Amino acid sequence: AELGRILFLPGDGIGPEVMEEVRRVIGWLDRRQMGFEVHEDSVGGAAYEKYGTPLADDTLAKALEIGTVMFGAVGAAQYDTLPFHLKPEQGLLRLRKELGLFANLRPAMVFPALAEASTLKTELVEGLDIMILRELTGGVYFGEPRGIEELPDGQKRGIDTQVYTTFEIERIARVGFELARKRGNKVTSVEKANVMHTGILWRETVKRLHEAEYQDVELSHMYADNCAMQLIRAPKQFDVIVTDNLFGDLLSDAAAMATGSLGMLPSAALGAPDADGRRKGMYEPVHGSAPDIAGQGIANPLATLLSFAMMLRYSFDLDEEADRLDAAIGRVLDKGLRTGDIMQPGMTKVSTSEMGTAVLKEL
Amino acid sequence: AELGRILFLPGDGIGPEVMEEVRRVIGWLDRRQMGFEVHEDSVGGAAYEKYGTPLADDTLAKALEIGTVMFGAVGAAQYDTLPFHLKPEQGLLRLRKELGLFANLRPAMVFPALAEASTLKTELVEGLDIMILRELTGGVYFGEPRGIEELPDGQKRGIDTQVYTTFEIERIARVGFELARKRGNKVTSVEKANVMHTGILWRETVKRLHEAEYQDVELSHMYADNCAMQLIRAPKQFDVIVTDNLFGDLLSDAAAMATGSLGMLPSAALGAPDADGRRKGMYEPVHGSAPDIAGQGIANPLATLLSFAMMLRYSFDLDEEADRLDAAIGRVLDKGLRTGDIMQPGMTKVSTSEMGTAVLKEL
Ligand SMILES: CC(C)[C@H](C(=O)O)[C@@H](O)C(=O)O
Ligand SMILES: CC(C)[C@H](C(=O)O)[C@@H](O)C(=O)O
Repeated sequence: AELGRILFLPGDGIGPEVMEEVRRVIGWLDRRQMGFEVHEDSVGGAAYEKYGTPLADDTLAKALEIGTVMFGAVGAAQYDTLPFHLKPEQGLLRLRKELGLFANLRPAMVFPALAEASTLKTELVEGLDIMILRELTGGVYFGEPRGIEELPDGQKRGIDTQVYTTFEIERIARVGFELARKRGNKVTSVEKANVMHTGILWRETVKRLHEAEYQDVELSHMYADNCAMQLIRAPKQFDVIVTDNLFGDLLSDAAAMATGSLGMLPSAALGAPDADGRRKGMYEPVHGSAPDIAGQGIANPLATLLSFAMMLRYSFDLDEEADRLDAAIGRVLDKGLRTGDIMQPGMTKVSTSEMGTAVLKEL
Repeated sequence: AELGRILFLPGDGIGPEVMEEVRRVIGWLDRRQMGFEVHEDSVGGAAYEKYGTPLADDTLAKALEIGTVMFGAVGAAQYDTLPFHLKPEQGLLRLRKELGLFANLRPAMVFPALAEASTLKTELVEGLDIMILRELTGGVYFGEPRGIEELPDGQKRGIDTQVYTTFEIERIARVGFELARKRGNKVTSVEKANVMHTGILWRETVKRLHEAEYQDVELSHMYADNCAMQLIRAPKQFDVIVTDNLFGDLLSDAAAMATGSLGMLPSAALGAPDADGRRKGMYEPVHGSAPDIAGQGIANPLATLLSFAMMLRYSFDLDEEADRLDAAIGRVLDKGLRTGDIMQPGMTKVSTSEMGTAVLKEL
C-alpha cells in the first residue's frame, strides 16, 4: 500500500549521510506494507552547484506538489562569499515561506542517557521536555521594506522590517494552545511588548484568543530577554513557549544547547490544513551541515530519524510507528551506542550506518 | 575639591535602597577630598506618580546638563496597564536616546566566591570575564516606522523597523576594538547576516574598520542564534562581544545569568566624547526593580556599587578609586558576607545597609 510521497532534500555537508539512514527505516516500513514513494532533489549549496540557485523553481514546484519534505542541512564555507540571494540558507527560507510552513515545532528534550552531557547542572535538565513553537513565515525574516541603501553622504543604511498581523499571531498561538493541551497544558508567550509594537500586538492577540477559546490552558507572558535567562536558570518551568520568528531562532537554539542533546533534536515545520485536512510539512534535524565531519560516515543520524518520526506523526498520522521509532532510538542509547558527537566514557562508539543498523534491529 | 556632578535617578522598587549605599561611598570619597555634587530626581513609575510621565522634560534637561547619571531600576506591576508611552521603561529608553548613550558595556564576570551559584557547571564559568558591548540607541528600539495600524478588514498590523547606518555600526565597533585592546584582544561581532540586511551591513562595516585600523585585534563573526548557544556551551571562548540593541538585550541577559552572579553585575551606557573630551554616562545595575523585596532593606547593593565604580572609571577617570572599590567588594564576599539573593550555606546573611557598611569598612 502506498501511503504517501516524500520529497528528500538532503542538502549539504552531513545532510546526505544522515538522510541515508531514513531511507533504511522507510525500507523497513515498506516491508511492513507501509510504502512511501521517495523523490529526491537538491537544495542549498548542492542546488547552487547543480542549478545555480539554492532552490530551483522546479524543486519548489515538486515540494509544493508532494507537500511533505525531509530536509537534511544546508551550508558550507565555500558559499559564504556568494551574494545574499544565492546563499544556501535562502533555499531553506524560500521553502518555508512558499510552503506556508508557519508553525515550527522545536522540542527541547533531554535523553536520560545524555543528561550529563549538558553544560547545565544535571538536576536542572534531567527529564526536561519543553516545546518551543516558533512562528516561521513572518516577522523580520520576510517583512518589507528590507535592504541596504546608499545615502547621499556616502554612508549606507540597512533596513529590516518586523511585521505581524493579528491573523498570523492568532494562527501560531492557536497551535501553541492545542499543543499545550496534549502536553503540560501551559503556554508561555514571549515577546518584547515593553519595546516593540509587534510585541504589544502579539501579547494582546494571544490574550484575546486565550480568553475566547483556551481558558483551560495556563497562559503567561514573558519578555524575550527574561526568557533567555530563564532557559538557563530553570528550564523545567516551561511547557510550550510560543514566540516570533527571530526570538524563536535564538531561544530554540539556547534551549537545544541547554539540553545537552543538541545533536539529537528534531524539528517540524507545518502549514495550515487544506480543504482535505492535509497540511504541508518539512522535517529537519536542528543541527547544521557540520562540514568538518562530512563524508566520513561518522555523523549522528538520530536527530534526522527523530525528525522522520515527527513526519510519521504529523504528516501521515502514523502515531504508532512514530512511537516505535522513538522507542527504538531510546533503547539504542540505553544500550550504550554513541556516535562521536555524543560519545561518553565506557560507551560503544559507532558510525552513522552502524547507528542506523542498531535502530533497525530494535525496530 | 568638587570633582563633578552626578544625577541620581533611583526609580522604583529596590532602586532607592541600593542607591543609598552609593551615597555612603560618595561620603567616604568626600572625606578623602573627592567631592561630588549629588542631584536627585525621579524616573519610571516614581516619576509617573510625581509628574505624570516616566521621564519629565525637566529631569531630562538636568540629565543632559549634568551628563553623569546613576540609575537605580524602573518598573512595577501596577504600571503594566498604562499606555505604552507612560510605562516606566519608556523613561529609561528616552534617557538612553536623548543622552546619546550608544555604547552599553555589560561585563559578565564570575565572582570566585559565587562560581558555584551558576546553573552551569562550575568549571565552565570559573574565572569567566567577558564584556558584552551592546549598541543602545539604534536598531529596532527606535527605528521608524513603528506602531500598530488597523487594516480595512478589521485586522491589525504591528510594525517595528530595524535600522542601522554605517556610522552607527562603526562607532560601536570602534568602542569594541578599543575595549578588546585593554582586555583579551578578541572581538566577536554578532548579527544575523544570513537573514537580515542590517546584519549584512553590520558585518561588512565591522570587517572594513578592522582591516583599516584594528588588524592587531582578533576578530570573528558569529550568528546571534549560535552565540546564544555558545554562551551556554563554552562562555569562556569570548572576550568582547559586540552586537546590536536587540540581540544585545537577549545575549547580555543570557551571559549574566550564566555567570551565576546576576545580582552582582553592573553596566555602563556611554556617549561619544564631546569637544572637551567629556562623555555622558549612565550607570545602572543589570538586575531590575525587584518589587517583591522592595522596602525591606534586604536588596543586594553590590551591583549598584560596582556600577558606581564604573562611573568613577569612565566618567571621572578615577581608576585607582574604582579599583579600590572593586577590591573592597571582592574582600567582603571573600569574608562570607551575603545578602539573601546570593546566600549560600555557611555564609553570613546581611542586610542592604550591613553590606554597605562592610564595603565601607574595607575601603
Ligand atoms: C539557517 C538559518 C537561516 C536558520 C534561521 O535563521 O532560521 C537557522 O538558524 C534555523 O534556526 O533554522
Ligand atoms: C527595561 C527594558 C526596556 C530594557 C531593554 O529592553 O533594553 C532592559 O531589558 C535592559 O536590558 O536594559
